[in-house]
Amino acid sequence: MNDDWLDRIKWTADGLVPAIAQEAGTGQVLMMAWMNRESLRLTVQEGRAIYWSRSRKKLWRKGEESGHVQRVQDVRLDCDNDVILLSVEQIGGIACHTGRHRCFYQQLQGTSWVDVEPVLKDPAGIYGGKGGG
Amino acid sequence: MNDDWLDRIKWTADGLVPAIAQEAGTGQVLMMAWMNRESLRLTVQEGRAIYWSRSRKKLWRKGEESGHVQRVQDVRLDCDNDVILLSVEQIGGIACHTGRHRCFYQQLQGTSWVDVEPVLKDPAGIYGGKGGG
Repeated sequence: MNDDWLDRIKWTADGLVPAIAQEAGTGQVLMMAWMNRESLRLTVQEGRAIYWSRSRKKLWRKGEESGHVQRVQDVRLDCDNDVILLSVEQIGGIACHTGRHRCFYQQLQGTSWVDVEPVLKDPAGIYGGKGGG
Repeated sequence: MNDDWLDRIKWTADGLVPAIAQEAGTGQVLMMAWMNRESLRLTVQEGRAIYWSRSRKKLWRKGEESGHVQRVQDVRLDCDNDVILLSVEQIGGIACHTGRHRCFYQQLQGTSWVDVEPVLKDPAGIYGGKGGG
């Protein structure tokens, strides 16, 4: 596979790029995570979102434990070549490790963050109590 | 104004947080930029997107030169408290400094990035040749 397309990207000093996952059907922004060169290459090769976990310092195959895989339909790059936008199908309808549809469930109301989206599934039931994505 | 809501955010070592701007009407993701504490406070106070320009190292009142202001309708925070999602009305219909509707106009086709969205207005006509946001 020709890797010129990966050279176009302006990676951070840590070799990462932010990747936004947007749900294809609804247009909802599900989450933002980080990718390194290897994870972006694999994302495109395999057609599923594979991020770089900064906390665990390893590849994070989204859905590897939960089954909540993100099938990638479209990959975009912004004008500064430093942000990726994925259009994805969210298998299982749950992107967030809290068991919610998406990670952006805290809404600013006045000067308070309020949880405005329901937990669809108990995380203990998703991960068997292990946590993770 | 009570600032506890700003303390909830997990700022980077540089005191920044990524902010995604999504168009309210269409659901399109327009851009991602960065905010510091002051810019996020002002964004909420003034109801318009105010970013932190990392290259110019100053507040960037989106639309200050172009008139392409982003009116903020909703502010969300993700589960890790380290990404902001704004729902905005994009005044003038142009978010990108290239004169396109949005910044994510490069689409991966095979192993090539292809520009797939039209330039709606010549940037020279937007900025008078000065460049900027």
